[in-house]
Amino acid sequence: MQEVSTRPRVVIVGAGFGGLAAAKRLAGRAVDVTVVDRRNHHLFQPLLYQVATAALSPADIAAPIRSILANARNVRVLLDEVHDVDADSNRVALASGRSLEYDWLILATGARHSYFGRDEWAAHAPGLKSIEDALAIRRKVLLALEQAENETDPERRKALLTFVVIGAGPTGVEMAGAIAELARRAVSSDFRSITPHCSRVVLVEAGKRVLSAFPGKLSDDAARSLVDLGVEVRLGSPVFDVGSGYVQLGDELILARTIVWAAGVQASPAAEWLDAEQDMNGRIFVEPNLRVPSRERIFAIGDTANAADRSGKPLPAVAPVAKQQGQYVADVILGRRKAAFAYRDFGNLATIGRSKAVIDWGALQLSGLTAWLIWSVAHIWFLVGFRSRIAVAISWLWSYATYQRNARLITGEHPSTPTQLKRLPTLERKCA
Amino acid sequence: MQEVSTRPRVVIVGAGFGGLAAAKRLAGRAVDVTVVDRRNHHLFQPLLYQVATAALSPADIAAPIRSILANARNVRVLLDEVHDVDADSNRVALASGRSLEYDWLILATGARHSYFGRDEWAAHAPGLKSIEDALAIRRKVLLALEQAENETDPERRKALLTFVVIGAGPTGVEMAGAIAELARRAVSSDFRSITPHCSRVVLVEAGKRVLSAFPGKLSDDAARSLVDLGVEVRLGSPVFDVGSGYVQLGDELILARTIVWAAGVQASPAAEWLDAEQDMNGRIFVEPNLRVPSRERIFAIGDTANAADRSGKPLPAVAPVAKQQGQYVADVILGRRKAAFAYRDFGNLATIGRSKAVIDWGALQLSGLTAWLIWSVAHIWFLVGFRSRIAVAISWLWSYATYQRNARLITGEHPSTPTQLKRLPTLERKCA
Repeated sequence: MQEVSTRPRVVIVGAGFGGLAAAKRLAGRAVDVTVVDRRNHHLFQPLLYQVATAALSPADIAAPIRSILANARNVRVLLDEVHDVDADSNRVALASGRSLEYDWLILATGARHSYFGRDEWAAHAPGLKSIEDALAIRRKVLLALEQAENETDPERRKALLTFVVIGAGPTGVEMAGAIAELARRAVSSDFRSITPHCSRVVLVEAGKRVLSAFPGKLSDDAARSLVDLGVEVRLGSPVFDVGSGYVQLGDELILARTIVWAAGVQASPAAEWLDAEQDMNGRIFVEPNLRVPSRERIFAIGDTANAADRSGKPLPAVAPVAKQQGQYVADVILGRRKAAFAYRDFGNLATIGRSKAVIDWGALQLSGLTAWLIWSVAHIWFLVGFRSRIAVAISWLWSYATYQRNARLITGEHPSTPTQLKRLPTLERKCA
Repeated sequence: MQEVSTRPRVVIVGAGFGGLAAAKRLAGRAVDVTVVDRRNHHLFQPLLYQVATAALSPADIAAPIRSILANARNVRVLLDEVHDVDADSNRVALASGRSLEYDWLILATGARHSYFGRDEWAAHAPGLKSIEDALAIRRKVLLALEQAENETDPERRKALLTFVVIGAGPTGVEMAGAIAELARRAVSSDFRSITPHCSRVVLVEAGKRVLSAFPGKLSDDAARSLVDLGVEVRLGSPVFDVGSGYVQLGDELILARTIVWAAGVQASPAAEWLDAEQDMNGRIFVEPNLRVPSRERIFAIGDTANAADRSGKPLPAVAPVAKQQGQYVADVILGRRKAAFAYRDFGNLATIGRSKAVIDWGALQLSGLTAWLIWSVAHIWFLVGFRSRIAVAISWLWSYATYQRNARLITGEHPSTPTQLKRLPTLERKCA
C-alpha cells in the first residue's frame, strides 16, 4: 500500500446507521477513513427486540463492521473506544492510550437508555440497546417462565408471570407485543403447570397514547392490536418507583419479576468531549450543515445530534435520519454538497406483533396485515448483508407458520437459578 | 390431568443425547417421566466447534428441552440441578432444595473437560462443552485477530496470531481445522495490517497420530488434510505446562494468546453420588444391562457410564452410543427388553474442514470430499428440529460458497479490550 499521509484523514466514531453510511459513502474516495467502534459489529437495532424475545439469533441482526467495509480499501476499522476529543489539536483520545489525528471528525456515537436521573432503576428494569442487553432480557423472560412452571405459591407464580414494559414508543410497543406472543402463545404447549392465560403483560406509558410520534388514529389502532394480543395498556400512568420485583404507578403496585425499560434515551457523552451545547437528552445542537457550532471540522449525526427540521422541530432519533445524515456529511467532506441538510421522510413504521403494524405515510395511513407485510419486507431489505436477510426471512416464515420461537436459549454464567421450594409442584394446569 | 401417582415414576438426569433418547422412547407410555437438566436446552454437541469458530449461532444447534418434548404429555421438564442421590430412599436431591422420588433413575449427566489434575490450566486453555464455552472461545479468537490488527510489536503480534489446540481427537482436529479456515482464510480481506499467512495454528497431540480411534490410513489422511489447511501438526508432543499466553512442549515454548483444550474429559460426579466404582475418567462401571452394580433401579448411560463391548473394551464416548443406550434403558423399564445392551456401530465420522472429512465403516474407509458430503448430510439430518436443519444447511452452503463466517460477533461484558499501545499501527500488510 502506498504512502497515504497527504490525503485528508476522516475519523468516524461509531459504526451505527449514521457512521456506517458515512464510511460507505467515503469508500473508494481520495480520503483515508478510520472507523472506531468499541464493538466489532454493526447492529440492526430495529430488530433487537426480536433477539430479546427469542425469535432471532444475535448473528441474524449483527455483522462485523470490518466485513461490511472489507472492500473499502481506504477504510480501516479499529476496535477501540473514544474517551475524549481534543478539538484544538484535532486529535481523538482512545481507551487503548493511543490517539488518532483527523482532518474531519464525524461523531456518530449513538445513545443509551436514560432513567431520568433514577439510575438505580437500571438494575431492576434493563433497557434494550446492545446484544448483551437483549440476551439479558431473553434470559430473564425465559427464566421467569421456567421458575413459574416450578412455583407452587400462587402469589409468587403470579409475579413470575407478570411482565411490565415501561414506555410505549416503538421499542416498548414491539417488546410488549413480542413478550405477549412469546409468553401467552409460543411456549404454551411446552409447559405442564402454567397456561397461556396465566401470563400478564402490562405496557405502561406516562403520556396519553402509544406511539406518540404517529397520528392519533394509528396510535388507537396500535393500542387495539396490543389489547388483541392480551397486553394491558396503561396510558397516563407515570412510573413513581421501580425496585426488585415491582413497579409503582401512582397508588398501584404491580408485582412483576420481569421489567423492561423502554422509556428514555440519553446520548453518549460526545457533547461533554467538546463542551458543546446539548439538549435535555445530551444531544449536541448542530448547525444546519450538521457541524458542531464553532467546530469547523467536526460533525455530529444520528442520535448524537439535535438537528432541527425546517419548522425548527428536532428530527426524530430513527435510523433513516442517521443514515441520510451520514451520507450528507460524507458528501460535504468530499466537497459535493454545500446546502443545509434536509431530511427526506419516507414514512414512519412500527410493528406490534404477528400481522399487526402501523405505517404513517402522511396522506396514507395503514394498519393491520398490509402494514405488517410492508414492515417485514422493509426490515428484511434494510438488513445488512445478503445472508442475514435470508436467515431472518426464514426465521420469520417459520415463526409465522408454527408460532414457535427459534432462539429460546437461556445462556450465561449461571444457567440454572432454581427457585427455593421444598414441595413438588402439582401437575394441574391451574392459574392462580 | 388425572391422578397419576400409581404409575411408575422415571427420573432422567440430563437431556443430552442419552437422556433425550430415553425420554422420547418413554413418551406416551404408562410411566410418569421427569427430565431434570440444569440448562433449558439440548445441545447438538458435535457442531459446537462451529459456534466456537463463528460459523453457526448457538440457536442453530440448541433447542429448548421442553419444546422437543412438548407433545409428550407424560414427560415433565425441570430446570434444576441434581446434587445427590439417595439410593436407599429412592430420591434425588435438587439444588433448589426439593427432592424427587423415583421408581427408576437414569443417570445421563455427561462429561466435562479434564486437565489431568492440572486444573490451573483451565483458565488459560478453555475447553469446549457448553454454549458458554463456545462463545468464550469465539470471543477469544476474534479478539486476538482484532488486537493483532492494532499491534505493532512483532513479537506480540505473532503471539496474538498463534492458536494452539491441545489434543487431536475429533474435537481438537475440528477446532484446529476450523480456526485455520477462519484465521487464515475467512477474515483475510477484512483486515488491513494482518494477512492470512501470518496466522499460525498448531495442533498438539501426545500420541503418535491424530484421530487415534480411526484406522491408521484415515489418521494419515486427516493429518495431511490439516497440513493442507495450514495447520502445524505436532505428534508425540505431550504438554508440560500451560500458562497465560504460552504452551510448553518439552524444550519448546510456544507463545500463543489463544489456547484451546481438547485433550481430556471427566464424567460428572454421578459416581460419587452413588459411591459406585468408577474408571479413571470418573465413569461408572455398569453391568451389561447398563445398571449400576447393586442398584437394581438405577441406570447410567452415555458419557456417565463405562460400558464394555463384547470384547470387554469400553464403548466410545460418542453420541450414537448414548442414544442407543437411552433407548435400550427405556425399553428395559417398559419391560420390552431383557438381553444385555449391544451397540450397533454404524461407523465413525470426523471432519477436518471444508471438503475434508474421514469415515470409517470398517471395510469401507473414505476420506476427502465424499466423506465430507456424507458427514454434512448426516449431521444436518441428526440435528434436532426441522428449523435448525434448514438454518444450518443454509449457513453451510453460504459459508462454502463465500468462505465467510456468519456469526463473527464479539459479545460479553467488556466487548472492547484494546491493547495498550501508544503508537499508531502502520498500514503496511506485513507479517512479522
